Amino acid sequence: MKDVQNEYDSRGIDIQKVGIKNFDIPLNIRRKNSSNQIVYAKAGISVSLPKEYKGTHMSRFVEVLTEWQTKDMLGSDLKGCLVSVINRLSAQSGEMFLEFKYFIDKEAPVSHQKSTMCYDCYFKCILNDYNTENELYKFTLGVKVPVTTLCPCSKEISEYGAHNQRAIVSVEVSYDRNEHIWIEDLISEIEQCASSSIYPLLKREDEKFVTETAYNNPKFVEDVLRDVVLKLRENKIVKEFEVECESIESIHNHSAWAYQKEFK
Amino acid sequence: MKDVQNEYDSRGIDIQKVGIKNFDIPLNIRRKNSSNQIVYAKAGISVSLPKEYKGTHMSRFVEVLTEWQTKDMLGSDLKGCLVSVINRLSAQSGEMFLEFKYFIDKEAPVSHQKSTMCYDCYFKCILNDYNTENELYKFTLGVKVPVTTLCPCSKEISEYGAHNQRAIVSVEVSYDRNEHIWIEDLISEIEQCASSSIYPLLKREDEKFVTETAYNNPKFVEDVLRDVVLKLRENKIVKEFEVECESIESIHNHSAWAYQKEFK
Amino acid sequence: MKDVQNEYDSRGIDIQKVGIKNFDIPLNIRRKNSSNQIVYAKAGISVSLPKEYKGTHMSRFVEVLTEWQTKDMLGSDLKGCLVSVINRLSAQSGEMFLEFKYFIDKEAPVSHQKSTMCYDCYFKCILNDYNTENELYKFTLGVKVPVTTLCPCSKEISEYGAHNQRAIVSVEVSYDRNEHIWIEDLISEIEQCASSSIYPLLKREDEKFVTETAYNNPKFVEDVLRDVVLKLRENKIVKEFEVECESIESIHNHSAWAYQKEFK
Amino acid sequence: MKDVQNEYDSRGIDIQKVGIKNFDIPLNIRRKNSSNQIVYAKAGISVSLPKEYKGTHMSRFVEVLTEWQTKDMLGSDLKGCLVSVINRLSAQSGEMFLEFKYFIDKEAPVSHQKSTMCYDCYFKCILNDYNTENELYKFTLGVKVPVTTLCPCSKEISEYGAHNQRAIVSVEVSYDRNEHIWIEDLISEIEQCASSSIYPLLKREDEKFVTETAYNNPKFVEDVLRDVVLKLRENKIVKEFEVECESIESIHNHSAWAYQKEFK
Repeated sequence: MKDVQNEYDSRGIDIQKVGIKNFDIPLNIRRKNSSNQIVYAKAGISVSLPKEYKGTHMSRFVEVLTEWQTKDMLGSDLKGCLVSVINRLSAQSGEMFLEFKYFIDKEAPVSHQKSTMCYDCYFKCILNDYNTENELYKFTLGVKVPVTTLCPCSKEISEYGAHNQRAIVSVEVSYDRNEHIWIEDLISEIEQCASSSIYPLLKREDEKFVTETAYNNPKFVEDVLRDVVLKLRENKIVKEFEVECESIESIHNHSAWAYQKEFK
Repeated sequence: MKDVQNEYDSRGIDIQKVGIKNFDIPLNIRRKNSSNQIVYAKAGISVSLPKEYKGTHMSRFVEVLTEWQTKDMLGSDLKGCLVSVINRLSAQSGEMFLEFKYFIDKEAPVSHQKSTMCYDCYFKCILNDYNTENELYKFTLGVKVPVTTLCPCSKEISEYGAHNQRAIVSVEVSYDRNEHIWIEDLISEIEQCASSSIYPLLKREDEKFVTETAYNNPKFVEDVLRDVVLKLRENKIVKEFEVECESIESIHNHSAWAYQKEFK
Repeated sequence: MKDVQNEYDSRGIDIQKVGIKNFDIPLNIRRKNSSNQIVYAKAGISVSLPKEYKGTHMSRFVEVLTEWQTKDMLGSDLKGCLVSVINRLSAQSGEMFLEFKYFIDKEAPVSHQKSTMCYDCYFKCILNDYNTENELYKFTLGVKVPVTTLCPCSKEISEYGAHNQRAIVSVEVSYDRNEHIWIEDLISEIEQCASSSIYPLLKREDEKFVTETAYNNPKFVEDVLRDVVLKLRENKIVKEFEVECESIESIHNHSAWAYQKEFK
Repeated sequence: MKDVQNEYDSRGIDIQKVGIKNFDIPLNIRRKNSSNQIVYAKAGISVSLPKEYKGTHMSRFVEVLTEWQTKDMLGSDLKGCLVSVINRLSAQSGEMFLEFKYFIDKEAPVSHQKSTMCYDCYFKCILNDYNTENELYKFTLGVKVPVTTLCPCSKEISEYGAHNQRAIVSVEVSYDRNEHIWIEDLISEIEQCASSSIYPLLKREDEKFVTETAYNNPKFVEDVLRDVVLKLRENKIVKEFEVECESIESIHNHSAWAYQKEFK
């Protein structure tokens, strides 16, 4: 059967990225202090394509991902998956994006009742000029952490009460392949920067606690952002980070938002 | 050219609804006390198909919607559009769903500064057994109104503060074709049932006002629901209604939710 | 600490449904011919609330779902979960909705290469008037199956080719608690009704096969719908069903759509 | 009333971007060869915040956007809006993002019947170091164009037929403030690069035409990408561009995808 993808292309354009997107796949992630967790990832994976070739071979991306389904992953070891894809497709560079829901047991602050909380997370990795002297590998871990923000201005100017709301703190960090940051630890650091942490299960004594904690820690999106930035600047493993805080304002139909990106 | 849709189908199955979905179209809606508003609707429209026919003629739905683009609509007059579709396709029954963003000018409560607030709305209409003695026409208006809810339990048990958040009150009402309910009026009634109304633009004096108003009017989703139900029971034009209140809890990553449907 | 929810409410309104929504939780589903699968469900769960009470106790829904996390579920046995919720909240009626991604191994039609395909599924269950003579329990299984549709009209009128596209066939079926339908079997029946089944992994010989299969089986959304309806009418376990076919037309920016609901 | 935002912040962190997001607003866009079009934009707008200040003043973003509602916009003139925001908030830099649906009349290729087609578009603009010698203004226009792709491999290896599907070509272009590219022209150029253009309304003779056109122009995502890249390289106004083609494969449940970004 003819291999149309392999035909010569005369347009002379090296394609930077070509591959598949929105591919659902179960993966096996190593957890901190616990057994592995199967996660359901939405995957995107691509390679570079030299100008001589009409097309890439899409089925090979699926083959490689299918082989990696049963591996025991630690995020940063995804380099191996990109190397397989690059070899199988005779490419020079490759990228992968895996987003998934991750579940962590969480204890209510006073009653200590346990329940399971869900966080949106992702792994992003890039491998450029593989096996050349310019080889570059970059791994990024991303988490989206729901928290409470309570408005300092509203608290100050009102006789009583203060508007508060759910906010999403999105953080992504890059670090070297021989280092490791646990999802559990990154989330826990972020939760400490909000007006209050949030929980799936709160009994009445817990609800009193989180209400008062938030009132005692009023924070603008700017405050949450700055506190997260301070923590990430101090973290020696982190080489590069991006922080976003989006507050689903309870008094408006839009969000308050702050953003920072830094390299070390 | 052969008309495949018109061929005889031997499976003997009358199809209840067949048509198009996710069709984007600009429409022209009559506003209360103001000039018309062009809205961008996502439309779904369908008819019944007798068992003899293999298929309906999809392009005719688009033709009829295109003709109605320039009309001056008042929701309940959509019967005319359904009649066109039913006639054009020799059907007996038809349905239409139009969802769109609707903009209303809103004044801040203390500073009286004006801005424009956006609400998700929809029209739904059904015409069954057209032109027979069993003919039934039903029009439904739906609105989704963002508001603030402040938790009565949290206020009661805490020394200070109370968790609050954005909540969405979704209401749909049905009424006779010769009656009319303005979107503006329905929204305004719903906003009065929350802990506080929300606004696009609030200066400091307004923020103090909405913060204190919410603190003085603590409401569970159950409370908002019951207050909306009372208003709709009293409204003589409304023949049937459905109310939902979903509160985007600031202390959890899930929603509190209440629902009611009533016929008169 | 005061129990605000337990206070007397004077508005005299029995609430039909109150509970939580958008709650993420891992669950353990029994599979056909295989070990269990952990799925990540988005849960909604609610009860009725008598007019005397101001509010329900939201944390108890989370407690019951947390207890059910480790159970070995078969869909229809969710009655037990609703009974727990109803008892814990002294309610009469309850409802639950669990939607989740479900993964099934699938073999390519010619090369027989294996990969994993993902389907959106849901369980819905209702328990009304629990422990009375009017008790009613209803369980519904829903699946969304992506397939290919190839247009019979386009094939007929064109010299060569025919437009085709991805379509989503959504089916929900209700059956008695002592009966059982495997997700795997329901999906497989639906896939046989399309122009062609779709696959995560196709080598060249497979691609030739699915292309020619679809061309040999042109089907409108009406055809897919009718063939699924025939299968479900014949299935003796199914007491009630709903079928939708939405075709993401390749020649338009909207969908073709057909719908049927039947009771036996 | 105290101005909490204006207080001194001791953390010493200059914030790169702070503002509002998901703000819905009607805007007035100039069209090619036609009267203006009111569009409903989802807006994000932000400024830089020096380390001395605790917070920005969120209501001023809404005030400025509200003033711009009635202007007659041409995309690139959004610099004026950013200047207002920067001045009103004593900032140095600002950014704005406006995404909206844009409607264009389109004629069927053979019957010449007219209907209205909807495209997702956006304006993005950045103004850095305003009023300094390093001032930088950058305007970006983005469009998402649905088209048909027909697979060259499937056509080649199959006896008859070829799988085809809807694909989305996303293009963004940057150009100088004194230049102009009409949305209508950019979309029309992109549509010429696909296997076939798509239409809201097609009569039978049109359907034959688009089916045969697509069959005669088989294109991988790589082909569409390369053809768009060639056009944009030739366009002298464009200084920088980004192209993505995502094909909603009819034989898979995932997408094929290609991406390119170039500076001139």
